[in-house]
Amino acid sequence: MREIGIDQLDDLARGAGILGTGGGGDPYVGKLLAREAIRRHGPVPVYDIGEVPPDATIVPVSGMGAPTVLLEKLPAGTEELTALRALEAVLGRRATHIVPIEIGGVNSMIPIAAAAQAGLPLVDGDAMGRAFPEAQMVLPTLIGVRNTPMALADDKGNTLVVNAVSNHWAERLARAACVQMGCQVSCADTVLRGDQLRDGLVPATLTLAEDLGRAVRLARAGHADPVAAALGVLGGVRLFTGKVVDVERRTTGGFARGRARLSAVRGETGTLELDFQNEHLLARRDGEIVATTPDLICVLDTDSGEPVTTESMRYGLRVTVIGVPCDPRWTTPEGLALAGPRYFGYDCDHRPLPAA
Amino acid sequence: MREIGIDQLDDLARGAGILGTGGGGDPYVGKLLAREAIRRHGPVPVYDIGEVPPDATIVPVSGMGAPTVLLEKLPAGTEELTALRALEAVLGRRATHIVPIEIGGVNSMIPIAAAAQAGLPLVDGDAMGRAFPEAQMVLPTLIGVRNTPMALADDKGNTLVVNAVSNHWAERLARAACVQMGCQVSCADTVLRGDQLRDGLVPATLTLAEDLGRAVRLARAGHADPVAAALGVLGGVRLFTGKVVDVERRTTGGFARGRARLSAVRGETGTLELDFQNEHLLARRDGEIVATTPDLICVLDTDSGEPVTTESMRYGLRVTVIGVPCDPRWTTPEGLALAGPRYFGYDCDHRPLPAA
Repeated sequence: MREIGIDQLDDLARGAGILGTGGGGDPYVGKLLAREAIRRHGPVPVYDIGEVPPDATIVPVSGMGAPTVLLEKLPAGTEELTALRALEAVLGRRATHIVPIEIGGVNSMIPIAAAAQAGLPLVDGDAMGRAFPEAQMVLPTLIGVRNTPMALADDKGNTLVVNAVSNHWAERLARAACVQMGCQVSCADTVLRGDQLRDGLVPATLTLAEDLGRAVRLARAGHADPVAAALGVLGGVRLFTGKVVDVERRTTGGFARGRARLSAVRGETGTLELDFQNEHLLARRDGEIVATTPDLICVLDTDSGEPVTTESMRYGLRVTVIGVPCDPRWTTPEGLALAGPRYFGYDCDHRPLPAA
Repeated sequence: MREIGIDQLDDLARGAGILGTGGGGDPYVGKLLAREAIRRHGPVPVYDIGEVPPDATIVPVSGMGAPTVLLEKLPAGTEELTALRALEAVLGRRATHIVPIEIGGVNSMIPIAAAAQAGLPLVDGDAMGRAFPEAQMVLPTLIGVRNTPMALADDKGNTLVVNAVSNHWAERLARAACVQMGCQVSCADTVLRGDQLRDGLVPATLTLAEDLGRAVRLARAGHADPVAAALGVLGGVRLFTGKVVDVERRTTGGFARGRARLSAVRGETGTLELDFQNEHLLARRDGEIVATTPDLICVLDTDSGEPVTTESMRYGLRVTVIGVPCDPRWTTPEGLALAGPRYFGYDCDHRPLPAA
């Protein structure tokens, strides 16, 4: 057991922003929520997966919506606890632990805020090992865990409980309601028992995010290359260094969808195109695919190593794109059916990242 | 107390089809559902409002969606009981009575089916005295009764429970989910206590619908004018007799919206235009408004007196349009704010129907 206090939030948010592969929502907003909750309620205990009793009730709490909306429409700060309580009411029992559904952006911070507010400990891990845009794209789906009952709460006080025939149906119904609720809601769903955590979570990703964020900060402070520091922690590969020259973006169907084009700088040649649906899905170098979901395609500010989310990409930014292998469970046939490129409508298979 | 058995269904469905002002969904489909439920579970007891104990729990059960969809996508027949049980689960108590939310089309039949399946009695009345397209357009809204918790169930087995900050928000969230669920779902919502029925219901409308349906049938059998027979029961006014010459229709936003144009026959002159959103909202004769929501604008087959729903209007049908004054609570300022022409975007006030 360790604790997450206010001092850990900056590194954690930075690292989770990188692991969020462009999505998961702006970590800055999440950091404000988590900081305020810790300031009021104190630091949050964090347990390793192995420390959680097998009969514990672990509830992922997260935000759903389009990150573009979160930039302008701040949460009320009450949604996550409202969603948790609505879920507990239909479950008929209380959560014993909170866990991030994804280790990305605001969704690494909302669980901290929820845990602080509820007076519950966190589990060190998440259900993706990255961020994905849709609710059914979690390891628990692969082991047959249902994501319903799913409770949604908005900033106005509306709540919704979905019971669906499949995890994909839950996403579909929740997304439609989420759009009406203003495209930014809190969710509590995909309840796990303690003995399901090994198969249902990627372990120790809160620690990984903090380590990653710290490595980037220390490299920057020591005038070293922060992107190299990130790669040192993550073990991925540098795909492209360039300048953002074009971003198409639309907020549609409850997602931020679009495409960004980077042109070469610093001795690099050619162009890189990034397709995204909240998260980056595909990277094409001079028209050829070099990285695909479910591998992590992460965009960092070249000089500072700060994560660049899809909604904050804009003309002129100097960025470095790195590819990081996903958790191996995502490249099984079942994992690829859930979150591979074909699910998102691309006529290509997942291909391994180029060698470093 | 009386009973509704299979023998009453034809007259009831016919009368409710007329009272549904073009909406409420095809009564034929509803009749099949109610007939099957009564055949299996026996006739349904019906109580007058005055016979219901003040502490009773009365649950309206209904269908939500676009009637155009109901024509092609039949209910599974399990949705209404699933919605009722989902609502009871969050209420923490069982319904003692079922009541129609609206006396119109399929929504006068679904409560009969639900009551038979649940083994519960019906209350003779409904929450509108007609049909309206949106869930908040009920008399309980006018007396401060919330329509949430609202439970929705679809034919696939998905359920949803909405808790909203207003009755209008509940409509908005439920409608979005309803569209995803295939635009045809069952709802249980707007729970009433026995002592709220006098203010929350229009009394005895199941009896009215049956009387109306019988009067039309008997007139037809006796070679009398069935439309005159309907007016004899309802006390309305004949607005136009004509032929349907044009129907624009689109199923959008979870509703069947459109406009129908009638040209004169049988010594009538000019044209009549009808605007609808599931139900008829406005009638214009030669461009001049002659009837508006919340008054009932009902379309009957001129020869048979059978109700013509908005989704079954088609070129060549000979129809008579009648106007029937609504329950007086709908023409109060609060009633008009909820369901008057301005709510639906028309730049006109409600005007009383022309004299008979």
